[in-house]
Amino acid sequence: MTSVVSYDARTGQVLGELTAHTPAKVDAACEAAAAAFGPWQSAAGTTRAALLRGLADALEADREAVVALADQESALGPVRLNGELDRTAFQLRRFATLAEAGAPFAYTDDPAVAGPPPAGHPAMQRWAVPLGPVAMFSASNFPLAFSVLGGDTASALAAGCPVVVKAHSGHPLLSAKVHGLAQQVLAAQGLPAGLIGLLQGGGRDVGVRLVRHPRIAAGAFTGSTQGGAALAAEAANRPRPIPFYGELGSVNPVIALPAKLAADGAALVTTLAGSITLGCGQFCTNPGVIVLIDQLQPGLDAKAVNDAFVAQLTEALRPQTPHAMLTRHMRAAFDGGIAHWREAGAELLLAETAPEGQPPKPVLAQVSALEFIAKHALREEVFGPASIVVRCASVDQALQLLDAIGGSLTVTVWGAEQASDEAQALVRGAMAIAGRVLFSGVPTGVAVTAAQQHGGPWPSSTRPETTSVGDAAMQRFLRAVCLQDAPAWLTQRAGRPL
Amino acid sequence: MTSVVSYDARTGQVLGELTAHTPAKVDAACEAAAAAFGPWQSAAGTTRAALLRGLADALEADREAVVALADQESALGPVRLNGELDRTAFQLRRFATLAEAGAPFAYTDDPAVAGPPPAGHPAMQRWAVPLGPVAMFSASNFPLAFSVLGGDTASALAAGCPVVVKAHSGHPLLSAKVHGLAQQVLAAQGLPAGLIGLLQGGGRDVGVRLVRHPRIAAGAFTGSTQGGAALAAEAANRPRPIPFYGELGSVNPVIALPAKLAADGAALVTTLAGSITLGCGQFCTNPGVIVLIDQLQPGLDAKAVNDAFVAQLTEALRPQTPHAMLTRHMRAAFDGGIAHWREAGAELLLAETAPEGQPPKPVLAQVSALEFIAKHALREEVFGPASIVVRCASVDQALQLLDAIGGSLTVTVWGAEQASDEAQALVRGAMAIAGRVLFSGVPTGVAVTAAQQHGGPWPSSTRPETTSVGDAAMQRFLRAVCLQDAPAWLTQRAGRPL
Repeated sequence: MTSVVSYDARTGQVLGELTAHTPAKVDAACEAAAAAFGPWQSAAGTTRAALLRGLADALEADREAVVALADQESALGPVRLNGELDRTAFQLRRFATLAEAGAPFAYTDDPAVAGPPPAGHPAMQRWAVPLGPVAMFSASNFPLAFSVLGGDTASALAAGCPVVVKAHSGHPLLSAKVHGLAQQVLAAQGLPAGLIGLLQGGGRDVGVRLVRHPRIAAGAFTGSTQGGAALAAEAANRPRPIPFYGELGSVNPVIALPAKLAADGAALVTTLAGSITLGCGQFCTNPGVIVLIDQLQPGLDAKAVNDAFVAQLTEALRPQTPHAMLTRHMRAAFDGGIAHWREAGAELLLAETAPEGQPPKPVLAQVSALEFIAKHALREEVFGPASIVVRCASVDQALQLLDAIGGSLTVTVWGAEQASDEAQALVRGAMAIAGRVLFSGVPTGVAVTAAQQHGGPWPSSTRPETTSVGDAAMQRFLRAVCLQDAPAWLTQRAGRPL
Repeated sequence: MTSVVSYDARTGQVLGELTAHTPAKVDAACEAAAAAFGPWQSAAGTTRAALLRGLADALEADREAVVALADQESALGPVRLNGELDRTAFQLRRFATLAEAGAPFAYTDDPAVAGPPPAGHPAMQRWAVPLGPVAMFSASNFPLAFSVLGGDTASALAAGCPVVVKAHSGHPLLSAKVHGLAQQVLAAQGLPAGLIGLLQGGGRDVGVRLVRHPRIAAGAFTGSTQGGAALAAEAANRPRPIPFYGELGSVNPVIALPAKLAADGAALVTTLAGSITLGCGQFCTNPGVIVLIDQLQPGLDAKAVNDAFVAQLTEALRPQTPHAMLTRHMRAAFDGGIAHWREAGAELLLAETAPEGQPPKPVLAQVSALEFIAKHALREEVFGPASIVVRCASVDQALQLLDAIGGSLTVTVWGAEQASDEAQALVRGAMAIAGRVLFSGVPTGVAVTAAQQHGGPWPSSTRPETTSVGDAAMQRFLRAVCLQDAPAWLTQRAGRPL
């Protein structure tokens, strides 16, 4: 591939064409990042904060043009994209505050203890140091917040690491524009251009070459399980392996207990239908699996309650008209995913096929827990406005279902307000496979906070012990170094690398 | 392999023979660990502490027999082994204190913020949860402190994870004995036997099957780069990949600046010779590379100072009589490593060959920095009482040398007491590749403290952002879960898993 074509996501019309970067350009970007790492790793928190705030300001100053271009390439609409730009600027400023407050320089002071080992030991200080240049792979579905100046870039820069961003093929012109803004900010602040690099193109010549480049010290990725797994394998198979932080696919089960549905069913139907179709279902936290338990409470006809809920959800979804998907490839993959469900024996409650090239219609399917557990195809993420209802005969069966899913960014449990053996068991099962467990609301909408955890066991992440959203995201790009008997000129730096 | 043979490390005599575990036994141990995980993940800090202290007490109570058996199988001698037993008990009790103080249950409370996103968000709590059963691969060179009840086991149990230990083939009888003590403690405390499992045997039927078992949630390993890389690949290539924490090979450069050698050379010779031959050089922090800079200070004849130091070090090493190596395999590998140095053109300053079956003699080699950087064979760890002196023409060349090494558990810098451009550059280069940087003393001796970092970039670890020694070792076995809008019955547990 020597060119990268930008398409209007709604019409398929060609918006522009860029030349894909050559292997030599990939190498040059990595070398420039390595050169920028020298001074940036020792930059003060205020310097890092000034850059991050400058980037946020630049995005906001050019909001109109940025959102318009993002809308053309993604079809996500101006309301969502203005909100996403707000979130992107918020993230940049949040990491600015963290850097300024000294978070990347937090350290443990461990004074000498007299006496022989094991209790006695020399003076030790545990510092954090940045890993080095980070290869960043942009997401398709967040053209701003998980792209050139998204959360990965903000957290890496705050940690002291340059980034080389691989633009997503779904929004090449937007990536180039945002990168241009970033370059203006770098120039205005007297910082090297190599601190934020951008590469266009795909395959072995760009993406794989980037993650295998000797100057790259870590990878960060948001996208499909297949794509992330392939790049993670490249990172692991380098002569010198590096950490690779992949945020991958996720089915985000919502467990709705019958008593809750009996009490609040109508409101939950509206909430859930909105979450399933929001942004045309193109969220990594889209609720893809609805878990209903048919035999829980003796005083309640759980099956009838659940049947009614499913019927109402079907009717609530039917009139929804999602917007166009991000790319034609994703639109085709959505139809393929629904076909897999059908072939695997799922009952399709709602599956009106939209013509090729048009936005998809919402899809709702239903299967028994036994089928869902037995057939891998039913557990695979279908990216788009589709969910599968799984009917469980018991709480135990719901727990087996969670175990079969194995890893998810989120699990939602509706109806666990009061402590009970069932609630405890379900929450425990949810915590065993998820990075975030919700007790009300829907999993779409990932707040940027101190406590956020956006990452869970495989297949939702390559590194379940890390998060790609929230304050802890910065930790991915730091490692510890212990200084033993360090001289005063060094310890007085109080954690700030040389 | 259907049997595991125990040899006397000094005489080669067979001490006993055990039946290797079958694949069915591997599976049973993993299932037992998974069953034990249920209650153990929610065990209180006091319960975890009681087990860890019970294990420490049991080791100490049977000290005489444990040390005698360890000495037969390892040849490490009673002084070292008594010290290692002290350290092992110290580690167990340190993690007991951490568990009791609530370290595994530390959490971030993030109350709701009113208003729309991105600033507004629901109530969130970030908890830590244990990963699950851990596959633990014992080290050859620490038959107690990095074995059945070693640091990995102590930190995993404190975190809430059961362990299945793969005994090292170098000390099968000791492993079985220590595991027997552990089983008595578990029984006395009413805890399931599956909390600490033990497997004997190697290869695909035991080691690989263990790390690939679906019930295993993480791997921990201390040993060679080759062995660790192979198991890390198995962990990464599982249908559901898991974290694999490997502490691998390391050459631990010691950079000695000429002014320091001019002032304290005689004392440093003694210290260094002792560190090179300590425990027959069988430490992962053994100083394998001595870096000397021949042209640093105009007022000093650096080359003459360095020549004198090398001559003194050679003479200090010559009369040393290391004890037998841990296994005959390692003894053969040591001779092979020295042969590689010779073939790669190193000058052998001291290389008296000991007959096969006898303890090795200390070896000292010398090369130029240019040769060392050019030839990979010169940079490979030689496990045993051997070091290679590398002569650098400049500080820049020393920095290139560190870059070529790429990753090391430690780097030691002698002579950086005063701030200078050279000292800053060398310390920075050291921090870029090491987990621990020392400014006095020798890298052998790894204190168990809050600030310790035992792990560095590849090839010294598979996960440079983690440590296998010190308080932070527990973090390897925890991951975060964010609870959003959690009910009071759950938030009141204040981080303690269900």
